[in-house]
Amino acid sequence: MQRLTDYIAQFLIGQGVRDIFMLTGYGAMYLNDAIALSGINYYASRNEAAAPMMAEAYARVKQSLGAVCVTAGPGATNAVSGLAEAWVDSAPIIVFSGQVTRRHTTHNANVPGLRTFGTAEINIVPIVKNLTKYAAVIDEPTSVRYHLEKAVYYATTGRPGPVWLDIPLDVQQALIDPSSLDGFIPPKERWFNTNLTAATNSVIKLLLRAKRPVLVCGHGIRQGGAISEWRNLVDLLNMPVIFSRLGLDLMPHSHPNVFGMAGIKGSRYCKFLMNEADLVISLGSRLAVPFVGHDLEAFAPGAKIVMVDIDKAELSKPGVHIDLPIHADIKPFTQELLKAIDNEKLPDWGGWIESCRELTRKCPILSASQKRNPIDLYYFMSRIDALSQKHHILVTDAGSNYYVGGQVWRFENARREITSSAYAAMGLSIPLAIGASIADKKSQVLAITGDGSLELNIQELKTLSHYNLNIKLFVINNGGYVSMRNWQDTVFEGRRIDTEATTGAGTLNLRKVAEAFNLDYLKIEKHEEIDEKLKQVMSNDSPIFVEVITDYNQKILEPFDR
Amino acid sequence: MQRLTDYIAQFLIGQGVRDIFMLTGYGAMYLNDAIALSGINYYASRNEAAAPMMAEAYARVKQSLGAVCVTAGPGATNAVSGLAEAWVDSAPIIVFSGQVTRRHTTHNANVPGLRTFGTAEINIVPIVKNLTKYAAVIDEPTSVRYHLEKAVYYATTGRPGPVWLDIPLDVQQALIDPSSLDGFIPPKERWFNTNLTAATNSVIKLLLRAKRPVLVCGHGIRQGGAISEWRNLVDLLNMPVIFSRLGLDLMPHSHPNVFGMAGIKGSRYCKFLMNEADLVISLGSRLAVPFVGHDLEAFAPGAKIVMVDIDKAELSKPGVHIDLPIHADIKPFTQELLKAIDNEKLPDWGGWIESCRELTRKCPILSASQKRNPIDLYYFMSRIDALSQKHHILVTDAGSNYYVGGQVWRFENARREITSSAYAAMGLSIPLAIGASIADKKSQVLAITGDGSLELNIQELKTLSHYNLNIKLFVINNGGYVSMRNWQDTVFEGRRIDTEATTGAGTLNLRKVAEAFNLDYLKIEKHEEIDEKLKQVMSNDSPIFVEVITDYNQKILEPFDR
Repeated sequence: MQRLTDYIAQFLIGQGVRDIFMLTGYGAMYLNDAIALSGINYYASRNEAAAPMMAEAYARVKQSLGAVCVTAGPGATNAVSGLAEAWVDSAPIIVFSGQVTRRHTTHNANVPGLRTFGTAEINIVPIVKNLTKYAAVIDEPTSVRYHLEKAVYYATTGRPGPVWLDIPLDVQQALIDPSSLDGFIPPKERWFNTNLTAATNSVIKLLLRAKRPVLVCGHGIRQGGAISEWRNLVDLLNMPVIFSRLGLDLMPHSHPNVFGMAGIKGSRYCKFLMNEADLVISLGSRLAVPFVGHDLEAFAPGAKIVMVDIDKAELSKPGVHIDLPIHADIKPFTQELLKAIDNEKLPDWGGWIESCRELTRKCPILSASQKRNPIDLYYFMSRIDALSQKHHILVTDAGSNYYVGGQVWRFENARREITSSAYAAMGLSIPLAIGASIADKKSQVLAITGDGSLELNIQELKTLSHYNLNIKLFVINNGGYVSMRNWQDTVFEGRRIDTEATTGAGTLNLRKVAEAFNLDYLKIEKHEEIDEKLKQVMSNDSPIFVEVITDYNQKILEPFDR
Repeated sequence: MQRLTDYIAQFLIGQGVRDIFMLTGYGAMYLNDAIALSGINYYASRNEAAAPMMAEAYARVKQSLGAVCVTAGPGATNAVSGLAEAWVDSAPIIVFSGQVTRRHTTHNANVPGLRTFGTAEINIVPIVKNLTKYAAVIDEPTSVRYHLEKAVYYATTGRPGPVWLDIPLDVQQALIDPSSLDGFIPPKERWFNTNLTAATNSVIKLLLRAKRPVLVCGHGIRQGGAISEWRNLVDLLNMPVIFSRLGLDLMPHSHPNVFGMAGIKGSRYCKFLMNEADLVISLGSRLAVPFVGHDLEAFAPGAKIVMVDIDKAELSKPGVHIDLPIHADIKPFTQELLKAIDNEKLPDWGGWIESCRELTRKCPILSASQKRNPIDLYYFMSRIDALSQKHHILVTDAGSNYYVGGQVWRFENARREITSSAYAAMGLSIPLAIGASIADKKSQVLAITGDGSLELNIQELKTLSHYNLNIKLFVINNGGYVSMRNWQDTVFEGRRIDTEATTGAGTLNLRKVAEAFNLDYLKIEKHEEIDEKLKQVMSNDSPIFVEVITDYNQKILEPFDR
């Protein structure tokens, strides 16, 4: 016989989980104890909100399951913030919440409208149901194996996503006989039943007719483990490649087919590209609103659109006219397409590529004038990218650093970016950086956040210093909320609401913030010192808080129409 | 014609809303602008999680509607933490969330399983539905009046609670004709239909037979606006009065009938009282698990139990044997009971009261030995209470300060406590203090938090200093997580998980934390200096961060059985 929580810890180890993100609490006490005894490394966040964000970055860097453990009630509801991020960005994470003993749960009380019952108790499953692929209370100790296997199956099968198991205290401490437990039997039906040969044949037909095709590449390529197949495809197709936000780090942008990122805040010429295209093939990008633009129907108006996605819902959403939706796993689809192309002579799109290349020379993102004081964020972010090396992971969160990173980063050296596709919560960078660093201890994380964003997860600066992680945190000081000031200026005649440095709450004294959280501090305020200071910062493995004073009136470049 | 968000702002003003808690964001931009133009004072939290907590304290101090405005997506999901508190503790607050334009919402896309659609979009209503009395998307501009009136009706009628309205950007900026809008017609049926005369007659019969009755008094008495009727009732009944957690501040504990608080962490003699009682009349207390004890059936085993509650679900929950459940509004019920008592000669319970009083003398909470160094938290908390004055509001959150405050505070002077009934999220004190202070600018708030709790809403220290609120924040430094260490010692043979000062994350340098957030700082570390320093702190209206070094091995007293 074994304590149920010890069984869970062993199960997690069997799934390759070596680290877990948590905050201890009474309602999860047996879970906490079992984790500690199991040898799984636990990393305590300072607010449960950040734990799923850490686990998301961990899962994405390690390409494996992320794990979280929180306590009942407030612990569980706090974690909803991070859960939403993992849901939107397809991170396979499993969250365990402690719960009060079964007979004190509203779940078992079965009284309509009962708000709470036991101490610090909330019925969390109905709340997280809409943010998870699977959520359940383990009410019966002998069902633990079933629930664990089912949860991991859903977290990692098809489009990945978070799952949640809620475990009452008396179930946590129950003794079970592991050999007698029933497991979960995955559904027999495949989750997609597209005929790949037929689908690739249709794509080939469109390719043969295309004069100005564009290949859109997104996060799904990496999630689907199809990067090497996809690289072959890019070389074979030899057409312009454009990324959606989470596809940005798929390959170095010096590759002759790469034309950076498209979208509302994409490269300056991306609108032209998409407007001229007569065929768009989207691989593992969900063609989200920030990518296609607010006027969904106007996206790539002259093109046939092929969309390959693992999630049927993404293929069915209204707006963008998908001519050929292909519900498939990206890896077998790409393999099939490679085979089909082998037998065909595709058109030569060299002229089309050259005309696109011509455009990029005409409208560069960076120009010499951006090397100025006060520091232009475009210049600073481009230096981060230029000086990064193979062991670097880049992290951004919301606001100006997110937009600018998406426009100027080229990933010649740094191998990954961890950021949000579209949810883009303020304050994500710190927990994402922590999760990424723990997932790959040999990496060095270059994380960018804003002085507005910083505040939302400022407590995790303690996690950063306590675990002495190899994270270099760059806090852009532009007087707070520069993105918001920009729309207040354009839409509301400059009426500022809590975003003005003088009348709003303004920016904290960041040197003192770093000191309070026991972090080394450095300031960058002139463009001339950027390279030297970045090199200095990158030369060791200690965490540091770097304040970067940038232009208070920073504008974000928007793509233009020709 | 009027912009819809300006109509909302005017509506709120009509409801007496003068202040709103918010964080600006793109998705709520027209809401933000309308609030700023309307003259409603806006207070920006530094994370949306704290905004509903502030609004809850505001609503409870002001006895009126609290209001919150957050942006779409992460703004909305961040706010779930605070929403859960308001839900459990019956705070009438209205939350407005911004939302992307209608045609980019998953709500309207109507594709099963679609995780997100517009930029930073989430379908928030299904998530908050289980934490609100009413939650809806305003999808049709002409329905705005209906939704506002319905939301406020539910927030404030019956047992109060939070409501939520989600408003897409294109609806926010729509123009409406206020005179043409349909309103909400409240349901005709009364929400309770108990015959009060019959109910009070049943209570009288039980009273006439009772030898050892106890009156349990909770939050509902204040929520129901029945304090003056209840005071008359206490004087007329002349029986022992015992409080549940949120009833603690209903009257000074020097009143001859008052015997403090009962519950798992109640007064030391409360178990005896409840075990001896032959009649328990509960008014506006939900007889929650922390009050009745984990073994629900063992509560007041020899007593007939009468429970008067506004929430039918609370009367129907399993466990505690309620002999006479009365579903009623506390005020008319108390008025009816007062009338009925007038015609009766009740037994004299003087002997019973005297035997209870005898017990309190035998087992005091405080003893001379607690005046020692390192500072005993019991002694410190008792001095806070003793030195407080009429204009003071006391605030506690989770862990040891919450338990000790509940045991030693007597409210001879301080008029209110704002804390959590049972949800008790770590880190509540700072946002609760802010909301309370803004609700009553003439008050001075004495807020206690722990060094563990502090971290969960540490960002709101900026809100505290920025608005220069009259809040004295006492941070108990006991090496972090003393409550958790206590159960780790008792249940897990001292296996410590992230709670040990030396190997765990430990306590921040609190002086530096105060400096980073621009707050004055003071340290109290000897019992001899407590009174002088408290008087000094209370003598002005500025915010201050007071670090109180207390016993690392602080134990919490538990009630005992005789």
